[in-house]
Amino acid sequence: MSGAGFVAGDWGTSHLRLFLCDAEGAALDSVTGPGAAETGGRFADVLASLVAPWQERYGALPALLCGMVGSSIGWAQAPYVPCPAKPEHIVDACVALHGGTVHIVPGLSCRNRFNAPDFLRGEETQILGAMKLVASLGQGLQLLCLPGTHSKWVLAEDGCVREFFSAPTGELFAVLRDHSVLVCNRGTHDGADSAAFRKGMAHFNEFPQAQLLHRLFECRARQLSGELTAQAAEAYLSGLLIASDVHGALRLLPESVTASPICLVGSSELTHRYAAALTFNGREAHRVDGAAASLAGLAQVHRRLSSLPEVTHEF
Amino acid sequence: MSGAGFVAGDWGTSHLRLFLCDAEGAALDSVTGPGAAETGGRFADVLASLVAPWQERYGALPALLCGMVGSSIGWAQAPYVPCPAKPEHIVDACVALHGGTVHIVPGLSCRNRFNAPDFLRGEETQILGAMKLVASLGQGLQLLCLPGTHSKWVLAEDGCVREFFSAPTGELFAVLRDHSVLVCNRGTHDGADSAAFRKGMAHFNEFPQAQLLHRLFECRARQLSGELTAQAAEAYLSGLLIASDVHGALRLLPESVTASPICLVGSSELTHRYAAALTFNGREAHRVDGAAASLAGLAQVHRRLSSLPEVTHEF
Repeated sequence: MSGAGFVAGDWGTSHLRLFLCDAEGAALDSVTGPGAAETGGRFADVLASLVAPWQERYGALPALLCGMVGSSIGWAQAPYVPCPAKPEHIVDACVALHGGTVHIVPGLSCRNRFNAPDFLRGEETQILGAMKLVASLGQGLQLLCLPGTHSKWVLAEDGCVREFFSAPTGELFAVLRDHSVLVCNRGTHDGADSAAFRKGMAHFNEFPQAQLLHRLFECRARQLSGELTAQAAEAYLSGLLIASDVHGALRLLPESVTASPICLVGSSELTHRYAAALTFNGREAHRVDGAAASLAGLAQVHRRLSSLPEVTHEF
Repeated sequence: MSGAGFVAGDWGTSHLRLFLCDAEGAALDSVTGPGAAETGGRFADVLASLVAPWQERYGALPALLCGMVGSSIGWAQAPYVPCPAKPEHIVDACVALHGGTVHIVPGLSCRNRFNAPDFLRGEETQILGAMKLVASLGQGLQLLCLPGTHSKWVLAEDGCVREFFSAPTGELFAVLRDHSVLVCNRGTHDGADSAAFRKGMAHFNEFPQAQLLHRLFECRARQLSGELTAQAAEAYLSGLLIASDVHGALRLLPESVTASPICLVGSSELTHRYAAALTFNGREAHRVDGAAASLAGLAQVHRRLSSLPEVTHEF
């Protein structure tokens, strides 16, 4: 067994996942902790206590963190890197703190196709990782989709992130499930009725030019009419939302981009649903696990950081 | 001053507004009370106590009620009348209770253009009232829009309601304002920044084929970039939502329907915003006050009920 090389962490708003990695970036161990919003500002203490058992065994270890830990609610602000952003731009903009033993990966900003500002943080690392895990992703024009609370559609060209746009698909699902009268079921099902999910998706795609707004009331009306149970209505809502996200995104992008396989990066459940929606639209998808992509991205940034003379010196 | 003829009430989920009317339906007095969800099932008691001062002066008065009072959470269920629905179908389906001294107006159901079930309750009375207040509405093919928590787009032909479809525009605004990270302002502004409202509307209309989902994140991103204050973001969100509702609805309907002036029925603030969005899309709108439409509709149903021999007998 090789020795430990560094600690890699994806520190989001509500979750922290730390990995103990060897020098190549392979995970030797992992631990979870409180999200950035839950630390009460005590980032250094939280990190120190979580890595203490590893440091006892392996000595001092540098840490590389991505996600909301670099935002205004985080440990230190790592300013957004504007697109087009190459991997080296991201590495160069990593913020060193705690005497250079901790680095934070910056997020990305762009002016999207609606001429609106757009931002991501944490996904930049997953994008870098996915490109490492799927070699073809680093070549030519490629479309990635990172579904989640705020789904990101990302256009990359030869490994450079050119543009992205966001859709708060997961957040909309959660607020409608938990706070609207459209879904009366206050359960923890997360829309897990696959038949109802597919029905919502198929129904949306029958009128893909329609605005989502004019399909949402169905979640309630089909319960009133007895066509959907409360639990199924939740999955139907998920189907409508993901179909709207996928079909809408495909319509925004040129065929030349969407004809190649589209890379989905995220949880197994979500990428499965997005893949179904892409297939429904005649597109090919390949799925990459989000946590694996994070880890691969952090490893890649670590390698590049380590190869920079001044940063090596700081470690 | 003419004598009182009947009591007319719009009894919604969260509000009750009762009018003391003369025989022609002109309001002599009004009072507010608890919504259907707040009565604890004591509908008869609530009504009796609110009309007691009027009965003391004028003697026993029949009451005609519309809205959620006729739903499964209401006093008695007044089953939905299927479309196409003529005014006389609605009157015939009124439910008599309390010894025939109280009547409840039924809602409407239809299979809308998405082949989905759709329902409304309370709006049927506003539609009848609007047709009375705007004589031209009762002739030929007409489009009405009743914006609100669940906005209704209604196609009427020669006074008959042919079809409608719903958009939970108001509910989506409220849940996103109160429970999402898209708008960080937990105020009571209701999107009252008209410049930001117009900006959201204009920006949506620059890409009207886009799905709403891909524009919502802007509410947050434009705050991050300093382009919008938290308060303005709420109004911007309102602009995006209403533009999506209006443009989407116009695209669903044939030009022959949307070329004529579109009748907006609702609160002054909401119909003003919808009129702005219609004007933006090159359409003409006329606005009818929602409470006035309710009252006119109830008066019309009362007149028709009174002219039916068997119902007159019940009073």
